[in-house]
Amino acid sequence: MKSPTIAVCGGQFCDEPFLRFAEEAGRALGEAGATLICGGLTGVMEAACRGAAEAGGTSIGVLPGNDPEAANPWVTHAIATGIGHARNLIIVNSADAVIAIDGEYGTLSEIAFAVKLARPIVGVGTWSLVDPGGNPAPIHVASDGVEAVNMALGLIPD
Amino acid sequence: MKSPTIAVCGGQFCDEPFLRFAEEAGRALGEAGATLICGGLTGVMEAACRGAAEAGGTSIGVLPGNDPEAANPWVTHAIATGIGHARNLIIVNSADAVIAIDGEYGTLSEIAFAVKLARPIVGVGTWSLVDPGGNPAPIHVASDGVEAVNMALGLIPD
Amino acid sequence: MKSPTIAVCGGQFCDEPFLRFAEEAGRALGEAGATLICGGLTGVMEAACRGAAEAGGTSIGVLPGNDPEAANPWVTHAIATGIGHARNLIIVNSADAVIAIDGEYGTLSEIAFAVKLARPIVGVGTWSLVDPGGNPAPIHVASDGVEAVNMALGLIPD
Amino acid sequence: MKSPTIAVCGGQFCDEPFLRFAEEAGRALGEAGATLICGGLTGVMEAACRGAAEAGGTSIGVLPGNDPEAANPWVTHAIATGIGHARNLIIVNSADAVIAIDGEYGTLSEIAFAVKLARPIVGVGTWSLVDPGGNPAPIHVASDGVEAVNMALGLIPD
Repeated sequence: MKSPTIAVCGGQFCDEPFLRFAEEAGRALGEAGATLICGGLTGVMEAACRGAAEAGGTSIGVLPGNDPEAANPWVTHAIATGIGHARNLIIVNSADAVIAIDGEYGTLSEIAFAVKLARPIVGVGTWSLVDPGGNPAPIHVASDGVEAVNMALGLIPD
Repeated sequence: MKSPTIAVCGGQFCDEPFLRFAEEAGRALGEAGATLICGGLTGVMEAACRGAAEAGGTSIGVLPGNDPEAANPWVTHAIATGIGHARNLIIVNSADAVIAIDGEYGTLSEIAFAVKLARPIVGVGTWSLVDPGGNPAPIHVASDGVEAVNMALGLIPD
Repeated sequence: MKSPTIAVCGGQFCDEPFLRFAEEAGRALGEAGATLICGGLTGVMEAACRGAAEAGGTSIGVLPGNDPEAANPWVTHAIATGIGHARNLIIVNSADAVIAIDGEYGTLSEIAFAVKLARPIVGVGTWSLVDPGGNPAPIHVASDGVEAVNMALGLIPD
Repeated sequence: MKSPTIAVCGGQFCDEPFLRFAEEAGRALGEAGATLICGGLTGVMEAACRGAAEAGGTSIGVLPGNDPEAANPWVTHAIATGIGHARNLIIVNSADAVIAIDGEYGTLSEIAFAVKLARPIVGVGTWSLVDPGGNPAPIHVASDGVEAVNMALGLIPD
């Protein structure tokens, strides 16, 4: 069986606790033998990749631009999409489950695509979303990076 | 000066009042000489295009698939992107302002990209969004299609 | 019935005769009531859009970047895809037939996608392509812009 | 230093010698510690991934659709782009050099993008391309899969 692939989404700029959660999540993914996929840039993305590297894990950085060298230094495999913000679709599409940590509007687009594509989502301090019918978005809430990884791995459909 | 282009976003399936708002919005855009851009399919998209056609206006339907014939019958110009859900980025990117009517997760991704790309947004019965810092998304609230168009046209930066 | 949409592809930099062919092609499309679709930038694209405008026709410029203002001044409707070179797929995908005038590697990618998507292609001084099996690419050869438009309109499948 | 990433492009349907070249190329990449990137489907793509797997190497399959399960069984990491043929851009964009083996029109689009993006190209029994000015495309010719890999690795810019 393939090892699972988990997306970690979050902004380029965020506060220290969220960076720590992201690094913990990356490390937990590496320890679990799961592959991390993310946007490949700085902030939450870089912290998660650093965590994966610390655990000897593999990370895939799906970049917006044409240059693989734009990836943060912890990315194992850089995918230079050249399709800008549309690359957000690819990150969640390639994942068995998605973890959103904090996050700005790029992360919001990733949550939207994840639900659309039926990928399970775990959030750590992320968006509160109520649809026009009054229903909250199906985001499972975790309180730190390790819990988020455990929940995400448990939510992958058979 | 170019005539403005306004995106109308919303789901393929929605209740009657929202379809009426969409048709009114399309008609008001046509009467104002503005170009409507949307996802080109059914529901809110089709109602808006029908409204634009009734007023002799122009609509552009940005489709997910490879077949221009998949557009609803009121679309003036069909753009067959072949890039699936990633086409949501193109709709808002090509607009001077965005109107979201009701809507599901595709519409949520369009709102996310619109803020990311600094396009003004008007919502009619759409998503309630609170970012991780506790701030609501910058969505101007209108109560029907005509008001939404007037607000959207007024919000276009000089 | 919908009026046809014809793509005109070609480079940003090319010699005078090809620019004249492109302008003639745009004018012939406008006179025929067909919609021109192209990459929206300079060179062959701008010449074709200018021709369309001279005949009172409509042109759609499918841009690589996020800014609709980057379109040449003759574009009627700018589509700001934000997906870079991948926008080449959208140009030919949205057309009933494709005209390639001169052209560099971007045009080559458009010819490749056009054959892949079964769009008829007319070439004016464009690429010579022989596939690995020794077969030439199915490009109908025209000697100027007006002939190219007549051939393209005649090649559209019923 | 990062290990290099080499794209292997070619069709889903091709004759036996080309499949053998593809498998040899994949194996040589695995033995060299390079990462293989390809379209992730059958034919040349599957043969190359199988070769990489035989050598204990890593392969990335950049798929057109939304389902990572559509990858051939030898792919290490599946990227489900959901952007259809536009994914061809991503394959070559993410590579340090490109090997084209035989190939149809999808491969032709990849060669076009590779030149556009200044990636070195090695061809094995692939397209013959002459641009409108009479110049051949900059494709280095190899006679089998192993030679192609050696040439590709040697052509990577410092």
